[in-house]
Amino acid sequence: MARLTTEKLAQAARLVGASEFDVWLTFVRETFGGGDPALPLILEGGLTWQSALMVFRDGAKVAIVGNYDADPLKAAGDWDEVVPYVQGIREPLLAQLEARISKGKTPRIGVNFSTDDVKADGLSHGMFLLLEGYMKGTRFEACLASAGDLVGELRAVKTPEEVRRIRAAIAETDALFDWVDENVRIGMSEREVYDAIQERVEAKRLGYGWDPVGDPIVNSGPDSMVGHGVPSSSIRISPGHIFHIDLGVVKDGYSSDIQSCWYVPNPGETQPPEDVKSACSAVVGAIDAGSQALLPGVEGWRVDEAARSFLVAQGYPEYLHALGHQVGRVAHDGGTILGPKWERYGQTPFGRVREGEVYTLELGVDVNGRGYLGIEEMVRVSQGGVEWLTTRQTDIPLLRG
Amino acid sequence: MARLTTEKLAQAARLVGASEFDVWLTFVRETFGGGDPALPLILEGGLTWQSALMVFRDGAKVAIVGNYDADPLKAAGDWDEVVPYVQGIREPLLAQLEARISKGKTPRIGVNFSTDDVKADGLSHGMFLLLEGYMKGTRFEACLASAGDLVGELRAVKTPEEVRRIRAAIAETDALFDWVDENVRIGMSEREVYDAIQERVEAKRLGYGWDPVGDPIVNSGPDSMVGHGVPSSSIRISPGHIFHIDLGVVKDGYSSDIQSCWYVPNPGETQPPEDVKSACSAVVGAIDAGSQALLPGVEGWRVDEAARSFLVAQGYPEYLHALGHQVGRVAHDGGTILGPKWERYGQTPFGRVREGEVYTLELGVDVNGRGYLGIEEMVRVSQGGVEWLTTRQTDIPLLRG
Repeated sequence: MARLTTEKLAQAARLVGASEFDVWLTFVRETFGGGDPALPLILEGGLTWQSALMVFRDGAKVAIVGNYDADPLKAAGDWDEVVPYVQGIREPLLAQLEARISKGKTPRIGVNFSTDDVKADGLSHGMFLLLEGYMKGTRFEACLASAGDLVGELRAVKTPEEVRRIRAAIAETDALFDWVDENVRIGMSEREVYDAIQERVEAKRLGYGWDPVGDPIVNSGPDSMVGHGVPSSSIRISPGHIFHIDLGVVKDGYSSDIQSCWYVPNPGETQPPEDVKSACSAVVGAIDAGSQALLPGVEGWRVDEAARSFLVAQGYPEYLHALGHQVGRVAHDGGTILGPKWERYGQTPFGRVREGEVYTLELGVDVNGRGYLGIEEMVRVSQGGVEWLTTRQTDIPLLRG
Repeated sequence: MARLTTEKLAQAARLVGASEFDVWLTFVRETFGGGDPALPLILEGGLTWQSALMVFRDGAKVAIVGNYDADPLKAAGDWDEVVPYVQGIREPLLAQLEARISKGKTPRIGVNFSTDDVKADGLSHGMFLLLEGYMKGTRFEACLASAGDLVGELRAVKTPEEVRRIRAAIAETDALFDWVDENVRIGMSEREVYDAIQERVEAKRLGYGWDPVGDPIVNSGPDSMVGHGVPSSSIRISPGHIFHIDLGVVKDGYSSDIQSCWYVPNPGETQPPEDVKSACSAVVGAIDAGSQALLPGVEGWRVDEAARSFLVAQGYPEYLHALGHQVGRVAHDGGTILGPKWERYGQTPFGRVREGEVYTLELGVDVNGRGYLGIEEMVRVSQGGVEWLTTRQTDIPLLRG
């Protein structure tokens, strides 16, 4: 893990150097079972007391932490200075800011909040008020500003080690889909498939890309609850169904997020019926259209629009979600999304795509009486076009009975 | 799990009814891998889009969630109304507030922030700004207030089902300590013991009470890194050592947090030396003193002071932490602590202890040249005095072999 935090802290130092901030300050406490999503990018493990993790303009990396938390940080070797305290953080924090930020101009301190980017919004409102209070009456009063863009870029643009880990998570997911292909049979309930996949996820000591109550999502046929529903014990895989799985697993702290579909043949059927094949080619074509629009510098909504308008032109209804989201430490990893300009997405569809970001491309259609046909791929953005991280699904295989 | 959220929502309705708020509003998004610590008290599973979970003065429970999140909430049966939305939450949120809050006076909307109580501080600063923005220009403008006390009480005062789960986590921890007692031998490194315990925790599908990098904490002898350090591969259990473990496991979403100690005898020793026995009786006596002060209505710091002054009167140095913290969904569960009035504890030592809260009582002393002797128990506060949830450790057993 040390290599990852070292890579990310070097990236953070470059970003702070190129920003308007004197320092980027991550301010956290009791991080276990919650905490700032930016923290695991720069620190392995957790922190108990109020802690200030700072990257200054000149690249200096300073951590101020409760006395019992100091040893692991010193051992990690990522920090130029580790300052332990016993009674309170205010004094050592102000002393560091005082010593390291030049007096010529109004200081700018970037902290982790954002109205739009969930994963750059790790500072709680109470902690914000606390920090404001500590700075009251000093030259740092009212100098806190959103470092949302900086944190967003740090999280979104993946280092080589991060891409390696995402590929490893995808490989695990592929292996699970292979297992499904070989073992899932007509007559099994959605719930039985869900349980069997989770058993394998846990036996391999993998984590989940989203809440395990709905990971994997398993849908068979027209009566299934699409979206974030729980798998049904009474809906069983039956001939004529489209069988659909959406699965994300976490390996070494990084996630996959992939959807795959099968057709369950009636006796004598040797290929999916025409309506399924047409839906599949519309979905695959829309993903193609999106992937071609996905280039550095483009605003997210344009990528969604490319896929959405392709699908609608084929005579299918719009999907009621975004074409894609970023994937990283979890499946929904924040930042720019490839989505429509709907209020619920806030400013996120207006972000510009960057080289090195990892996105899903995902959509589906309901095929009347047969179920939900959804496909989801993962890609890395590069100058020359997308790099496919998943092995693409371009047709609907038969579920061997 | 439904029974737990049902119990907690009934408790929340009582608290809102007795408070100054028209509504208690939990406002979250993308809750997986983070999110508001109050959420799992009232909802099983996660939420993707901006979501408003509300308990009104009259007891009405209303959830406004993104369309794909609605079905599981409806299935849970805990909510009087589940309002799904597609494009944005602002309109349905304002409509609910408008319809359910009477117009006579200035509305008061309690939201989850607190400068002092970590577990009541789940609203991010960005989400706070977003909510303020939605309410701008309406009669709800500038009506957001801290529901920290309400959330703190909801979390701290345990329902019967919560106590049952904590007892189950303690039973699992006891079983692991029994395993240590039977299997840990002279010559094993701290790291080997840590690995062996984690293997058993994972085989039993238990979770960790705090970050698994340091759970369990394993210390043997005078050179060990006490506190939140990582176990050493080079420090080995040796005759003359005090051997100390601090372990917290999570079962069904609730945690234990227990410290236990052994003495590693030199050849021929049949009981611990006098300095170890004296230290043990000072530590046990200080825990006694704390437990006797732990009554409903008392401020937390007084309980710490009772134990701390007892220990100092025995000639031992003060411990550099709090005597106790609350335990619930994680080991450090927020709210009032039994700690000294140090800046780093903020206002938390000034909270008043309530009946039904669950605390640790923990402290230790360094025994010169032998290591760290620390004991930690868990208790439930009741009118007649504490109820011991752990089987008390009152002497230091020999580590066999």
